[in-house]
Amino acid sequence: MKQGARAEQQEDQVGKAGGKITPRETDYPQWYQDVIREAELAEPAKVVKGCMVIKPHGYAIWEKLQRDLDGRFKATGHQNAYFPLLVPQSFITKEAEHVEGFSPELAVVTHAGGEKLEEPYIIRPTSETIIGYFFSRWIESYRDLPLLVNQWANVMRWEKRTRMFLRTTEFLWQEGHTAHSTHEEAQAEVMRMLDVYGDFAEQVMAMPVIRGIKTDSERFAGAVQTTCIEAMMQDGKALQAGTSHDLGQNFGKAFNVMFQTEAGGRDYVWQTSWGVSTRLVGGVIMTHADDSGLVLPPRVAPIHVVIVPIYKNDDERAQVLAAAESIRAQLADVDLAPPRSRHRDFVEVVIDDRDLRPGNKFYMWERKGVPVRVELGPKDLAKGQVCVKMRVDTAAGRGKEFIAQNEFVATIKERLDRFQDELLRIARERLQERSRTIDTWDEFLAAFAGEKSTFAWCHWDGTRETEAKIKEQTKVTIRCIPLPGHGPEPEAGRCVFSGNPSARRVLMAKAY
Amino acid sequence: MKQGARAEQQEDQVGKAGGKITPRETDYPQWYQDVIREAELAEPAKVVKGCMVIKPHGYAIWEKLQRDLDGRFKATGHQNAYFPLLVPQSFITKEAEHVEGFSPELAVVTHAGGEKLEEPYIIRPTSETIIGYFFSRWIESYRDLPLLVNQWANVMRWEKRTRMFLRTTEFLWQEGHTAHSTHEEAQAEVMRMLDVYGDFAEQVMAMPVIRGIKTDSERFAGAVQTTCIEAMMQDGKALQAGTSHDLGQNFGKAFNVMFQTEAGGRDYVWQTSWGVSTRLVGGVIMTHADDSGLVLPPRVAPIHVVIVPIYKNDDERAQVLAAAESIRAQLADVDLAPPRSRHRDFVEVVIDDRDLRPGNKFYMWERKGVPVRVELGPKDLAKGQVCVKMRVDTAAGRGKEFIAQNEFVATIKERLDRFQDELLRIARERLQERSRTIDTWDEFLAAFAGEKSTFAWCHWDGTRETEAKIKEQTKVTIRCIPLPGHGPEPEAGRCVFSGNPSARRVLMAKAY
Repeated sequence: MKQGARAEQQEDQVGKAGGKITPRETDYPQWYQDVIREAELAEPAKVVKGCMVIKPHGYAIWEKLQRDLDGRFKATGHQNAYFPLLVPQSFITKEAEHVEGFSPELAVVTHAGGEKLEEPYIIRPTSETIIGYFFSRWIESYRDLPLLVNQWANVMRWEKRTRMFLRTTEFLWQEGHTAHSTHEEAQAEVMRMLDVYGDFAEQVMAMPVIRGIKTDSERFAGAVQTTCIEAMMQDGKALQAGTSHDLGQNFGKAFNVMFQTEAGGRDYVWQTSWGVSTRLVGGVIMTHADDSGLVLPPRVAPIHVVIVPIYKNDDERAQVLAAAESIRAQLADVDLAPPRSRHRDFVEVVIDDRDLRPGNKFYMWERKGVPVRVELGPKDLAKGQVCVKMRVDTAAGRGKEFIAQNEFVATIKERLDRFQDELLRIARERLQERSRTIDTWDEFLAAFAGEKSTFAWCHWDGTRETEAKIKEQTKVTIRCIPLPGHGPEPEAGRCVFSGNPSARRVLMAKAY
Repeated sequence: MKQGARAEQQEDQVGKAGGKITPRETDYPQWYQDVIREAELAEPAKVVKGCMVIKPHGYAIWEKLQRDLDGRFKATGHQNAYFPLLVPQSFITKEAEHVEGFSPELAVVTHAGGEKLEEPYIIRPTSETIIGYFFSRWIESYRDLPLLVNQWANVMRWEKRTRMFLRTTEFLWQEGHTAHSTHEEAQAEVMRMLDVYGDFAEQVMAMPVIRGIKTDSERFAGAVQTTCIEAMMQDGKALQAGTSHDLGQNFGKAFNVMFQTEAGGRDYVWQTSWGVSTRLVGGVIMTHADDSGLVLPPRVAPIHVVIVPIYKNDDERAQVLAAAESIRAQLADVDLAPPRSRHRDFVEVVIDDRDLRPGNKFYMWERKGVPVRVELGPKDLAKGQVCVKMRVDTAAGRGKEFIAQNEFVATIKERLDRFQDELLRIARERLQERSRTIDTWDEFLAAFAGEKSTFAWCHWDGTRETEAKIKEQTKVTIRCIPLPGHGPEPEAGRCVFSGNPSARRVLMAKAY
């Protein structure tokens, strides 16, 4: 608690890069703030409660996440659309659980154009209600189904405790909204999009995730079932990184979204919704960054290679810069994107020729998480080599390596791919090592004492009461009931808290 | 007025595609609404005053505009960032002209998280104020300059009269914000971005524009100078399609954005801002669409080719569909994007095999503005040909053409490029033909009688009074004082209204 409080106070200070990064062991929440500040990813808005400004380096990471996800949504048949930011206040009350869940967090527009509004508007906290209304206008028959739309948008939830990227009052996200003629088809969509999220997290963010189902008390307000991907941060806490909801007919009934069935009858549509947000940037940071700052998997890195020229005089400078530019131009022709993708992902190179000591430059780019650093001086030119250092020592490269220039250029894609794979491997090993099965309450209390967390696979008796008591006493929540293949095989046991019978273990952890 | 009023009433009706398109000559505003409805680009939100829902086909056009523009911004050294949606109310009052210009249009958040706020927030109508605040935190010295950021965002202006895409209370846009150490450098940036907009409008949207400077009464609230691109719609009215503002030191002073100069002194930064919005989609519609519906230049078309299979039985169907799929696959390998661009623009093909008559399909895809239609039946298969029809008859193709399949595939890029060029040529000719010089007030009144408009190059005495009187009596405004090369050469004359001396002609028109 003390650590968290200090971090929040820090958030309020003007955050210029050039300060210290607190080691993770000393104060993990402070480390997180420091990494964000030093990598110039974002800063707290201060003048707008709980909001942040996403700075260029942070936004560029978000753009890479967006671009890849957007391709996956389109490849699975979804189309983007845009719905209004403002929602009539009465809409939010139409679905009973939804209003209960979201009412405390709403921002309300009461005046506009110099007049008091007859009915206030709320700023969308999520768009099930307004989209439900439009679905009711667009859907008449089974021929109009499935309807598969996605929206990239900002949303607002007036949260009390905020933390950059992880929980801010305004955040950027995508929200998919689909309507189907049968529950089975909607359920298949829920799982398809959960798989899209899971594959994306692992392949692009190099962040392994557990796929599972939320308990009733943790599911989305208005859903019949919420599925999720949960990632382990370096402090052992869980990050809910994406959710995919089976909305049943709840919003269909609330907004009267009926369709003529193929058999000629009338029925309410079955809906789903699913979303990920700028929170993912927080997930990248807390999965890969270290005490020296940000570490970026190449597939989310806005800059892949930084070249730092080394020289003593103007002659050397001219020669080294010419060679650096030649390397940059060759690398810039390498497209890292998969063959049929709709974007190109050319290797992005920065030549840092500022009037600073090389050591200062190394330090700065390290903090920004650039995967590959190249030093280039007169000796390297003479030998036709470059001095390469990867941001993190792994099987993809250790310490300073001296490599022939043409070989470095020819193998850049393999080098970056291997680094990507290594980061995933490291994160997977961490998840493996810090996950445990816990069977006694004493062991449970010890595992979660203080600020610590772990991924604990425990038996649970399936009741809301037990879940609430565990949370109250330890701040630990049930992250999910794992999907087949994403946790221990089902086996009978006794609830870690109540001792009552249980049919399978669930994932318990403290969470962001 | 009568026409406009009818159109607004129409806006309130539920807009399902499948209705009639009113001819332009009969009722131009109604034609505009009909084209949008029939192409399924957008619909009025109704439940949220003055807002619209951008439907998938409309949003896909916006995405193409965005993607191309974003590449141009990055190529000119700008970085994207994201600033808060909400702005403290006091911020808006810090720049005197800015508050006067925007106050009547603001939407105000007074409550959030279940409580009344101490200070209300406004929803950004534009972000000069909040970004000015952050610039003051980020800029210390000339070394931090120039600072070149852009934001893709939604904004809100509570307008009384709205029209889909052209003027909605909420709209999507980009806003560039830059800070410089000298006025000269800021002025160069203003012109650079105006040129980016002008080139984009002509090369991508096939929409010729006049580049010029706004009069004092038409410039952005808080700017020292506003430059603009003005396009002619098919009814002769002007559409302000983009603006680039020289903000001088106005916001620098309002938000105390000071920097240490290279000489060691202190000065306020010189700022610019520039933006285009979803209004551009309205510009595409009103530049190219005809009485049969939308017409899309290939560079903004989400779908380039529709293939309509023609068959009488299942055997024929299987053969025709196999051939259609083969053509689709070959076309889908053709990348229309320029070589070094960061996106790929594969030829997008739809095979429409729905259980409808071919004629109905032709009609529907025509309304959606797809540039190329292919009919493919057993006879075509036998001859190894396709039957091609362009959306509009031009030198790029007239009526039905029968072309060898492999030739059609091999020349698709040239065909689309020529169609793009032809649409620009047609729009340029229209602009040319409907522009005139007007020297007498009688002629002026005749030219602008009723709903009519034209692009009139007239002498103006340079006073606000004359400008206001012309607007009051005819609804005609001064669209811009043309930049060199974008209008008649300067020549002395007499003001069309007052008869007082004038040094050059300015562009006058009714406008959206």
